[in-house]
Amino acid sequence: MRDWNQQARDRDARLARAAGLGRGKIVEAGQARALLERVLEPGDRVCLEGNNQKQADFLARTLASLDPKQVHGLHLVQSVLALPEHLDVFDRGVASRLDFSFSGPQSARLASLVSAGRISIGAIHTYLELFGRYFVDLTPRVSLVAAQSADAAGNLYTGPNTEDTPVIVEATAFKRGIVIAQVNELVDAVPRVDIPGGWVDFVIPSPSPHYIEPLFTRDPAQISEIQVLMAMMAIRGIYAEYEVNRLNHGIGFDTAAIELLLPTYAESLGLKGKICRHWALNPHPALIPAIEAGFVESVHSFGSELGMEDYIRARSDIFFTGPDGSLRSNRAYSQAAGHYACDLFIGSTLQIDLEGNSSTATRGRIAGFGGAPNMGADARGRRHASPTWLKAGREASTSAMPRGRKLVVQMVETFREHMHPAFVEKLDAWELAESAGMALPPVMIYADDVSHILTEEGIANLLLCRSQEEREQAIRGVAGYTPVGLARDKRAVENLRDRGVIRRPEDLGIDKRQASRDLLAAKSIKDLVRASGGLYAPPKRFRNW
Amino acid sequence: MRDWNQQARDRDARLARAAGLGRGKIVEAGQARALLERVLEPGDRVCLEGNNQKQADFLARTLASLDPKQVHGLHLVQSVLALPEHLDVFDRGVASRLDFSFSGPQSARLASLVSAGRISIGAIHTYLELFGRYFVDLTPRVSLVAAQSADAAGNLYTGPNTEDTPVIVEATAFKRGIVIAQVNELVDAVPRVDIPGGWVDFVIPSPSPHYIEPLFTRDPAQISEIQVLMAMMAIRGIYAEYEVNRLNHGIGFDTAAIELLLPTYAESLGLKGKICRHWALNPHPALIPAIEAGFVESVHSFGSELGMEDYIRARSDIFFTGPDGSLRSNRAYSQAAGHYACDLFIGSTLQIDLEGNSSTATRGRIAGFGGAPNMGADARGRRHASPTWLKAGREASTSAMPRGRKLVVQMVETFREHMHPAFVEKLDAWELAESAGMALPPVMIYADDVSHILTEEGIANLLLCRSQEEREQAIRGVAGYTPVGLARDKRAVENLRDRGVIRRPEDLGIDKRQASRDLLAAKSIKDLVRASGGLYAPPKRFRNW
Repeated sequence: MRDWNQQARDRDARLARAAGLGRGKIVEAGQARALLERVLEPGDRVCLEGNNQKQADFLARTLASLDPKQVHGLHLVQSVLALPEHLDVFDRGVASRLDFSFSGPQSARLASLVSAGRISIGAIHTYLELFGRYFVDLTPRVSLVAAQSADAAGNLYTGPNTEDTPVIVEATAFKRGIVIAQVNELVDAVPRVDIPGGWVDFVIPSPSPHYIEPLFTRDPAQISEIQVLMAMMAIRGIYAEYEVNRLNHGIGFDTAAIELLLPTYAESLGLKGKICRHWALNPHPALIPAIEAGFVESVHSFGSELGMEDYIRARSDIFFTGPDGSLRSNRAYSQAAGHYACDLFIGSTLQIDLEGNSSTATRGRIAGFGGAPNMGADARGRRHASPTWLKAGREASTSAMPRGRKLVVQMVETFREHMHPAFVEKLDAWELAESAGMALPPVMIYADDVSHILTEEGIANLLLCRSQEEREQAIRGVAGYTPVGLARDKRAVENLRDRGVIRRPEDLGIDKRQASRDLLAAKSIKDLVRASGGLYAPPKRFRNW
Repeated sequence: MRDWNQQARDRDARLARAAGLGRGKIVEAGQARALLERVLEPGDRVCLEGNNQKQADFLARTLASLDPKQVHGLHLVQSVLALPEHLDVFDRGVASRLDFSFSGPQSARLASLVSAGRISIGAIHTYLELFGRYFVDLTPRVSLVAAQSADAAGNLYTGPNTEDTPVIVEATAFKRGIVIAQVNELVDAVPRVDIPGGWVDFVIPSPSPHYIEPLFTRDPAQISEIQVLMAMMAIRGIYAEYEVNRLNHGIGFDTAAIELLLPTYAESLGLKGKICRHWALNPHPALIPAIEAGFVESVHSFGSELGMEDYIRARSDIFFTGPDGSLRSNRAYSQAAGHYACDLFIGSTLQIDLEGNSSTATRGRIAGFGGAPNMGADARGRRHASPTWLKAGREASTSAMPRGRKLVVQMVETFREHMHPAFVEKLDAWELAESAGMALPPVMIYADDVSHILTEEGIANLLLCRSQEEREQAIRGVAGYTPVGLARDKRAVENLRDRGVIRRPEDLGIDKRQASRDLLAAKSIKDLVRASGGLYAPPKRFRNW
């Protein structure tokens, strides 16, 4: 007779080993190591909560400190590797296999650990894709998560950075896995229940509050006049043109410039109430002036942003908040909204090739893509119409069956820092794939998903291109003085411009001399604080006054 | 000064009007009408929980009973309209606008109410798309949901049919909306918390348990030998060929036949452990023999299925269950898994055109598509590789950049009931779009997302077609004796067969004479009960012994 309840029995055995370590579900920090040693088994699939912002850092350090003779060969499934501890776990031999989405600051060390054979990568995912696999073939046996507070029953309050916690805990708890949470404090009653106590096995009060990274704060002081020009082009040539009302912005100064031009340039064009009303977006400080000017109706967030707490509380009509006024974010749901309920994604990249494939992969770094592939992909399962989506679909149409499509805009200066050209004949991703043994080159956004490429030279509307040759010339035609741009067929490019496939600032009625930093609704972090009525409290590193 | 907390104030005003109607959160059924009258305002956006299975039927009846002079112009945002009450709400003038996903049995009446101007349809969505909009531009002001039980604090236990409840409640509760739940019983302590009480405003013990539809039960007695033949072709020509291990099956007898052939035909081909290991699927009774035979490692579910409760409890290694052994389903997460973590979707349709577009839309019915567009679409944001996905991508490749892709199989007999041909020159969807004023014809799966069309005549692999002409002949080549099939270019079709684009049963090594009902691992509902060791308890209507 087959035992059909092995997981439940296995769970009971692990819990029995951990019995007596704490009072009820509460385990003191000093016992955290003992708890992990008793609960974990070699080869376990473990989800260590790493987000864009919130990090289960104490549990990460504890995991890295385990004796690899006892606990080894773990398979980590975690969306973001942001902290050195996340890689220490592999370096010390506690874990050996990794499925993830984004590694940002750890990308170089990740590549070197892969080279050294310390890490075997399953795959790089977009967030929602990794979450989907938590319910199919990458279900965690043990999850280590982070929250703001807990009560004695194990009810968790995540604070504004709910992020991945609900999806991780649901996948683990309902497949008889074990959920361990580090919390900043134990309280009698949590301000709201983000995760029901019945889904949580152990709560550890952490010796220090969990780490949070203010990843979406961009200082307006660093926005250049070229970025102002590009933002004007985005607003006039894309947002106004397609009446874009539901959108996501990537991280970075290019899109921060757009946010800061809404109450000035876009307002002067009479666009208030006509564009940018609904967002799937973290609470970007750079969006404050647009919110105050009445551009924004709603923002649903993947995570929160440090310093925005009081502002969010005071603007509850805009954000999703709990009864205590703090943000309720949710990466899984906001990614679903970004994929299916937004008409435009706009972001930056490091390299674009002649077909229009783009990637942030570079030699010696395995960075991953986070949410960009999900939001920067045409949602082919989408069935509801909007004017934006229908117009883009009409432009792209090559089939007898009419269909809408998403706008996916790549916004790049032709040269990035250190004068590296953003346009290349061949992506570095090919070389990385070969050196790291990947099945395919790691492309962030595939050519056929990109609708527009926007540089300081102009906008190339790839939807209107009818052949690979046309696409190539449209791309070369906005690639400026890069080798790719210089190799353009001038006549073909002029022809594309006549057809409106390529549009220069002057074709859009933009006077380049107007593109000044004076157009920014805030020119510094201090201006953002002022625009918020003193409600925005930027982290210290962004305060220079 | 703008009021930035209008929603919170509006919520408080509604709650104040309802004060005193109940004890704490508990309101008796007799007061349900009064509660809705006090809480609702004309024009409100309301989510009435309608799922594939679980229905907030008491709240639907109560809503339909309101005085339209007082409450009118509601905008309903609900995934499924399954009950007459769902349309009575419109017929009586309480609601006037509708955004939805699926209307199944109400599709004809829905069309007639649209014609009569009683309903204005916003759009038809796929489920995850509608859920995404709950967080962007269709956030409910009031949600009416259904659960199995609640405690005095409002904690909800959904039972196995969790379905849409978590996503509805999260979108509403955290945007200062009002959540009202009908429950089958009040208890001192719920078996598990599916929805935290803090997210719920009112609980109404319903006079009768909420309705549940056993939508995924297919009686093996009704499976024909043609369906057995087609299932053999699916297993040999697609599942084995591509090593499909992560998949979703649509509803219907065609795919039930595949499920019932796993322990017999697939086992005889040595495929156990090599195909069909992980599923995003409701607990189909037809899957019982495959589970018992050891084919299946895991099943994550959108909803549950009546009668499967004890079987699920006894097979907890396979399903996602709570501590009480009952299923925890979740439509939003399972749809994300179906989109991003599955390599194959296979389902049926009513009509397929010469490009390969398919639709279930027919004259006089507005049915919607449920989850099919989401799971039957290439997940362009996907970045992780699998052998299945890479092989399909290689076959489809027309670009210099290699890429994987999903298998999307349309499985149809060439003639459906009443001898309507499944293959047509032009979809009825065009006519429906015109008569109902839709922006686009309602296509379930677009041509470029379909990878294979499987009929009793053979399999057409559209991935291998390199032109529209080839696609058309490949489709005609499996369209049998329909007018579309008879109009084939015989030479072109033979050429496609030589190239393996079209494969007949004999090309797959299938002896048609073997295609007998004897191959089915269960030939009746009673056989399924027996296979389950008596654990499956089919609803009365499926018991004929």
